[in-house]
Amino acid sequence: MSELIATYLLHDEKNPEKKAEEIALGLTVGSWTNLPELEQNQLRKHKGRVVSIEGLPSNYVDQSLIRIAYPTINFSNDLPAILTTVFGKLSLDGKIKLLDLQFDDGLKSFFPGPRFGIKGIREKIKVFDRPLLMSIFKGVLGKDITFLARQLQQQALGGVDLVKDDEILFENELTPFEKRITAGKQALREVQEQTGHRTLYAVNLTGRTTQLREKARKAAEHGADLLLFNVFAYGLDVLQELREDDEIALPLMAHPAVSGAFTSAREYGLAHSLLLGKLLRYAGADLSLFPSPYGTVALEQESALSIASELTKEDVFKKSFPVPSAGIHPGLVPLLIRDFGIDSVINAGGGVHGHPDGARGGGIAFRQAIETNLQGKLLVEGAEQYVELKKALQLWGNAEVTA
Amino acid sequence: MSELIATYLLHDEKNPEKKAEEIALGLTVGSWTNLPELEQNQLRKHKGRVVSIEGLPSNYVDQSLIRIAYPTINFSNDLPAILTTVFGKLSLDGKIKLLDLQFDDGLKSFFPGPRFGIKGIREKIKVFDRPLLMSIFKGVLGKDITFLARQLQQQALGGVDLVKDDEILFENELTPFEKRITAGKQALREVQEQTGHRTLYAVNLTGRTTQLREKARKAAEHGADLLLFNVFAYGLDVLQELREDDEIALPLMAHPAVSGAFTSAREYGLAHSLLLGKLLRYAGADLSLFPSPYGTVALEQESALSIASELTKEDVFKKSFPVPSAGIHPGLVPLLIRDFGIDSVINAGGGVHGHPDGARGGGIAFRQAIETNLQGKLLVEGAEQYVELKKALQLWGNAEVTA
Repeated sequence: MSELIATYLLHDEKNPEKKAEEIALGLTVGSWTNLPELEQNQLRKHKGRVVSIEGLPSNYVDQSLIRIAYPTINFSNDLPAILTTVFGKLSLDGKIKLLDLQFDDGLKSFFPGPRFGIKGIREKIKVFDRPLLMSIFKGVLGKDITFLARQLQQQALGGVDLVKDDEILFENELTPFEKRITAGKQALREVQEQTGHRTLYAVNLTGRTTQLREKARKAAEHGADLLLFNVFAYGLDVLQELREDDEIALPLMAHPAVSGAFTSAREYGLAHSLLLGKLLRYAGADLSLFPSPYGTVALEQESALSIASELTKEDVFKKSFPVPSAGIHPGLVPLLIRDFGIDSVINAGGGVHGHPDGARGGGIAFRQAIETNLQGKLLVEGAEQYVELKKALQLWGNAEVTA
Repeated sequence: MSELIATYLLHDEKNPEKKAEEIALGLTVGSWTNLPELEQNQLRKHKGRVVSIEGLPSNYVDQSLIRIAYPTINFSNDLPAILTTVFGKLSLDGKIKLLDLQFDDGLKSFFPGPRFGIKGIREKIKVFDRPLLMSIFKGVLGKDITFLARQLQQQALGGVDLVKDDEILFENELTPFEKRITAGKQALREVQEQTGHRTLYAVNLTGRTTQLREKARKAAEHGADLLLFNVFAYGLDVLQELREDDEIALPLMAHPAVSGAFTSAREYGLAHSLLLGKLLRYAGADLSLFPSPYGTVALEQESALSIASELTKEDVFKKSFPVPSAGIHPGLVPLLIRDFGIDSVINAGGGVHGHPDGARGGGIAFRQAIETNLQGKLLVEGAEQYVELKKALQLWGNAEVTA
């Protein structure tokens, strides 16, 4: 029998055994022991079951982990049905957090995973042996297309691999969606002719839900590189439908906007690894942004690593790029590579734009830091050779990892 | 200048003034004081501003309420853009909860509100002077259409006004969507011929996001009464698009499944009143279900009342029916009417099906309790006259409100 296994964390539940049984029945067949045998036989394939119940170590008072198996025959093979089944009214039922969902191979076959994944994105820019480098537009509200194109060029000149739109840039008269794509493309082509380096631009896909696919198809026709998408302001299934549309066929970069509303609490909501890791990957995000463990908008290291792990571990799906973000500067590169490996994207806003030599200098400093680290050298050594890196370390400091 | 004002609750923030300024700038123009005057003039209409900062009474240590005004020119007039602006990366930034959003009339004009509202639903069943009564299917997974039709009839025979699908009933071979509509319609017509009472059936609209509208239009063609919708497993904008489609034009009943993931925490997420109240109403829900303050899956009384208040207070939009749910039995009717008034829906599952005389008896007992209460009598008085009510009070008790 095909099953989906959900893992929950319970707080302040005195009787997790009873609670687990109530969930397994209440969210499937409703009742069991009082049913006549004929009805039990009829309903057996729909009945949920308790897989395990574990108390946590004694320093976590009244916490327990329970695992419930739901027959997949009970729901249609889409994320709204799955979430409604395993965390529908249960999400309202006391201190309970959904930590994980374990799909079996049958259920996985209904999900696409990333269209490009880490390999596919690397192929696009022919960079295979280092983390990618991304930067973010800054202060773009109220600015025109010339301003945006110039800022894009400055970032690209520093050797960044990706530039993403500000997630709060929506449809507007000065810099409308299609114009951003064509002007951005032109700006980046000029840089490539000058430096030989290809930078990709992730344009923010926004608007009403049913218009997204048509807009995304237009983006593809206009030669867009990637789509940035505020998936949690829409819905995971909306992301999946963008992924599945062969007329779009663009890499999808999932922004974590709004996701803190369902991941931040210890006792409620969904685990970071599930929402920003596993489910985004299954639904088809090629890149997933999340708060890094180092910056001001920080995630606990364990949570950040758990997201990256879900995005990149062996599975039937392609791997998605982890993009730890916020508070990133060149001095953090050794930490980032230690924690997230080379199959990650180093993403900076202020750490690029705030460089004493401007965005171009910031990008260069990051590339120097990456190169230095991958050569097995300390950043302070690189700084002897590279003036941009030296300036960056002077400004932001150096969180060097030393043995 | 048109503005949207967001109210946030901060915990453990030592310097709310600084934090408020950072939000007002960081989520709009990025920076301000260091900009040249020319640029300030250009950007002034995009700049956010701090409206107010209040400390809370001293027993709430380190809590503060801040209100930030966002120029509406910064975003497109849709909920994904609004949520991404006011609670996008901010949702990830420490202990912050979004309590309210105050739309001005200009912004409101882009939202539909309920198509029918309380008045429109009442018109459909010609019941104007009492709370409506709703019951819920029970134990329907794995059952066939004959079983469902029979259960529907039993509920309708008790005089309930509405019956809703189980929210975890998805597309399935035994009871597919369209068959549920037509068989349900037939079953309810038979009851109406017998008793004269019209009961409406809310069928669960499920499936992939882009297929919902077509499916809902089919439902309308087949004569469906209402659509039940797990809006939080999809997205608020998806609900709004269902509301706006004139070829659907059916009342929409919003189920709170999954919403606990973003409303339950005191320090994170969105306030109940905002998500299950104001935003559902603006987006177009005719009815909003939420946990009652009385049952096992309980919401604090203040939260439950705040949802009802947002659904029914004076506004440019029609009013939506509050549907306090879970743990409801006839003995709670006086409390429900005291707290939620007659413009509410009394919604019961076990409190209907678990009646000693079955679902029919359960519905009758509820109607007797409502009638008794509205006549200004105590339920115990009604129980002298009505045997079904008497049995219900014996089984579940009586939470009579006495002066």
